[in-house]
Amino acid sequence: MGQNISTAKRVDTMKLTDIFFPFRGDLNVIERELDRSLNTKDAVLKKTSSHLLKAGGKRIRPVFVLLGGRFGHYDIHELKNVAVALELIHMATLVHDDVIDDSELRRGKPTVKAKWDNRIAMYTGDYILARGLMIVTELKNPQIHQIFSKAIVEMSIGEIEQIRDFNNWNQNLRKYLRRIKRKTALLIAVSCQLGALASNASWEVVRKMYTYGYNVGMAFQITDDILDFVGDEKKLGKPAGSDLRQGNITLPALYAVNCDSNKNQFKDLLNENKVDEMVDFIRNGEGIEYAQNLAERYLKRGMDALEGLPEGNDKDALLKIARFIGERQF
Amino acid sequence: MGQNISTAKRVDTMKLTDIFFPFRGDLNVIERELDRSLNTKDAVLKKTSSHLLKAGGKRIRPVFVLLGGRFGHYDIHELKNVAVALELIHMATLVHDDVIDDSELRRGKPTVKAKWDNRIAMYTGDYILARGLMIVTELKNPQIHQIFSKAIVEMSIGEIEQIRDFNNWNQNLRKYLRRIKRKTALLIAVSCQLGALASNASWEVVRKMYTYGYNVGMAFQITDDILDFVGDEKKLGKPAGSDLRQGNITLPALYAVNCDSNKNQFKDLLNENKVDEMVDFIRNGEGIEYAQNLAERYLKRGMDALEGLPEGNDKDALLKIARFIGERQF
Repeated sequence: MGQNISTAKRVDTMKLTDIFFPFRGDLNVIERELDRSLNTKDAVLKKTSSHLLKAGGKRIRPVFVLLGGRFGHYDIHELKNVAVALELIHMATLVHDDVIDDSELRRGKPTVKAKWDNRIAMYTGDYILARGLMIVTELKNPQIHQIFSKAIVEMSIGEIEQIRDFNNWNQNLRKYLRRIKRKTALLIAVSCQLGALASNASWEVVRKMYTYGYNVGMAFQITDDILDFVGDEKKLGKPAGSDLRQGNITLPALYAVNCDSNKNQFKDLLNENKVDEMVDFIRNGEGIEYAQNLAERYLKRGMDALEGLPEGNDKDALLKIARFIGERQF
Repeated sequence: MGQNISTAKRVDTMKLTDIFFPFRGDLNVIERELDRSLNTKDAVLKKTSSHLLKAGGKRIRPVFVLLGGRFGHYDIHELKNVAVALELIHMATLVHDDVIDDSELRRGKPTVKAKWDNRIAMYTGDYILARGLMIVTELKNPQIHQIFSKAIVEMSIGEIEQIRDFNNWNQNLRKYLRRIKRKTALLIAVSCQLGALASNASWEVVRKMYTYGYNVGMAFQITDDILDFVGDEKKLGKPAGSDLRQGNITLPALYAVNCDSNKNQFKDLLNENKVDEMVDFIRNGEGIEYAQNLAERYLKRGMDALEGLPEGNDKDALLKIARFIGERQF
């Protein structure tokens, strides 16, 4: 049996940086490589790329690649390319997402579309994606190329679905889950999987890592969607209910309209388009707990998937990351 | 020595479809594969993709792949994947270009951004590109993967350059040429090159095909830029001087401001922002002939590159396509 989430809840002093600590050397290698990979003579792309790199990010996908690699023949020179490609693809989708969501801020810093414009953001995204692809093509294993390209296809379908489902209050839970799989869980699953695959880990380990990543990724996005309602506005760097205000109907909102015991009251607010009241309703409604429970079920499934992997620091780190996701406040 | 362009000018009844005729069977295979590759359950992507496929296009990149393949071991099952991937990448860039250029019409049909919106166009482009990549990753030769990804990087840099150079009247000829290389010539060069490479043609043939494609591609774009001023508005499906009106400063316009004997008169029009008069000036100015001469020099270099290739229908077809580009009216 994997770890229980209620245990996880008690580990409340843990920070992501502590978990990442043993990998700081290799993460620096990856950071330098990221910087190098986006190097260009073009003045605009130089500025937009450097802006994005400086804005940072948790670099959680590279960490998953490194951790996946620990269960095979760990070689940072092979793994760094996988990690950089994944992070670039992730960055490219964020830049395009900010155009779609019309977001002015990300991680408290102005987005490319806000600091420059939508057109520049579109092409900065194209450029970063292309740079990521260039690195993929240098990897020797053709199976890895295929996993990358399939993931990009699925993610782009997910992006279109997100637009289509904007302001769509008739979507069911399955649709929401499929969307967040494509939006978030898939690339995290692939990060874990490719770390193991690029290190020639066994088929069984590769599969376990994928399952872990998929479930942790689902929990990560559900938690994100919860925090959008109940998180600290200052820490999030955006007002509560931003998703809803932008038309992105997430799980707590879907629960409010379909399942909450006071759903008729919510429907009235929806019909009258009283957005502030809708956000308040959801913050205090039953959907938050429902979503938390669902996230915890995913986390448990993710941790269970690690059963059978050799015990030690690397498995512990994977468990800790899962717990961190369960308890994160921003 | 290659063909002389003045001979080409006399072959005025030639049509592209006649040149393509021997390949109609294999082009049908490619068309079906294009259709299949964009097949998706997503309703929006299904509609946008099908709209794009129906809008058609000359499919000149697939033809170049097939022709390149004729100088090696021609295998349509290998070549079709290269051709479909190239055409998808080309389609993806057109969809994104229409967002940048704010174009309502392409080939007389509404663009994706006009019929849907900019966001849908951005993600339709992402999706089509990703589908193209998926096909690339199924190709066995890793050198081909690298050529593809490098081309996509260069094209995305070119797209950013195009935005940066919008309304920039201080750019020199070199900048213009570098931009149209990335915008057009590179993918045509790569189409010719990859057809030969995927058919295991000799290194020498692969190089010749690339040089042919590059030069023909440069001539193609210069001709496009000329026709934007002097072409038949009905046949082009857009008003004369559309590029200039959108801020895209092309060769005839650059010549007008820098080299025309009446350039001071043009500068006055520019200072007063008299766009209709500027378009008229360029239509009747010396820049058109200068651009035509430059296009012809590129075509000649392209045709010269074919020297040494075995004589026959395939080489003739390449020469005919070059001539067609030299004399096309729309």
